[in-house]
Amino acid sequence: MNLPDPIRRIADQLKGLPGIGPRQAIRLAFYLVGQGRNAIDELSSAAEDLKRMKACSRCFFPHQDKNNLCDICLNPRRDKYTIAILEKETDLVSIENTKKYNGRYLVLGPISKTGALLDFQKLRLQSLKNYIQKELGGKAEEIILAFNPTSYGDFIAASLAKELDGFAKKISRLGRGLPTGGEIEFADDETLGSALERRG
Amino acid sequence: MNLPDPIRRIADQLKGLPGIGPRQAIRLAFYLVGQGRNAIDELSSAAEDLKRMKACSRCFFPHQDKNNLCDICLNPRRDKYTIAILEKETDLVSIENTKKYNGRYLVLGPISKTGALLDFQKLRLQSLKNYIQKELGGKAEEIILAFNPTSYGDFIAASLAKELDGFAKKISRLGRGLPTGGEIEFADDETLGSALERRG
Repeated sequence: MNLPDPIRRIADQLKGLPGIGPRQAIRLAFYLVGQGRNAIDELSSAAEDLKRMKACSRCFFPHQDKNNLCDICLNPRRDKYTIAILEKETDLVSIENTKKYNGRYLVLGPISKTGALLDFQKLRLQSLKNYIQKELGGKAEEIILAFNPTSYGDFIAASLAKELDGFAKKISRLGRGLPTGGEIEFADDETLGSALERRG
Repeated sequence: MNLPDPIRRIADQLKGLPGIGPRQAIRLAFYLVGQGRNAIDELSSAAEDLKRMKACSRCFFPHQDKNNLCDICLNPRRDKYTIAILEKETDLVSIENTKKYNGRYLVLGPISKTGALLDFQKLRLQSLKNYIQKELGGKAEEIILAFNPTSYGDFIAASLAKELDGFAKKISRLGRGLPTGGEIEFADDETLGSALERRG
């Protein structure tokens, strides 16, 4: 059947969002109608609010302060010689939540399926290089390529390691092994292999 | 870490939507920021547009016409003596898409986990009864209780069948059996049992 226009319109918007398929988009549209005007107003006002966010000019994590830099980049107690490069803002949030990292970041943005960097990503990488040259005397202590432990993440990490060769004393990746709480019996071969190789 | 306020705010809205968990809500929030002002504007304008929808005063499916009734209820070629009662607007869309149903509907709205009808659902049911009495001479031809084939759906159908006893010559449910394209080998016992009982 032909969906009512407003349902179709918002479903088209929603189905473009990560993790939302066309069916769920339609379900969400009807659900919102059922929630009524106030709920719709709250949602669109919250969406409007997002327009106040801007990307930190150094690490590109979104923030809402008047400064050009985010809290992390402004914090003098964070080690500026250690820089983790990652794809998504949510990866940064996950790493922050461990409370085990005191360095800085570079958010590269989701990398396309071809593995090639988009123009804005090349610019971000260039701005990191400039920063290392100007502010860190040409060499960071460590650059952590914090990409997913997948063959895709491996590929990106390998190409960035080449690209950034000489810009840090050490270029590392996140450790691999058994996830805490996991069971050896159910670990896949790759994971168990990594756990053996990196035992200690 | 503390998420930036606008991210937290929209994530709180999004995580209340069906099928969206707290992690995906945060991911969606960052994604929207990354999409920029125009995409955010389009989304909130599409959300605003939803406010033009209103529920059909007979079947409660949302529509945007000036009439009180939706296209289906206004259509004289639809059989008004056959009424399918269902939970969700999307269930109605799915049934319409089969092009095998020419009756009318009553959208009851998602039924709570206790299985008890909410006040607005009792009113919808009452308005169906009034309609049957006034417009159909006290008895519909058939009421189809089009709920999911789950123990939960069975429970609701059983209680509605009691409630509507006498308001239709026949009260039915959707047929059960093997889904088209499925394989006997992989059918669960309940499904295969239903397929045997309802063979023909």
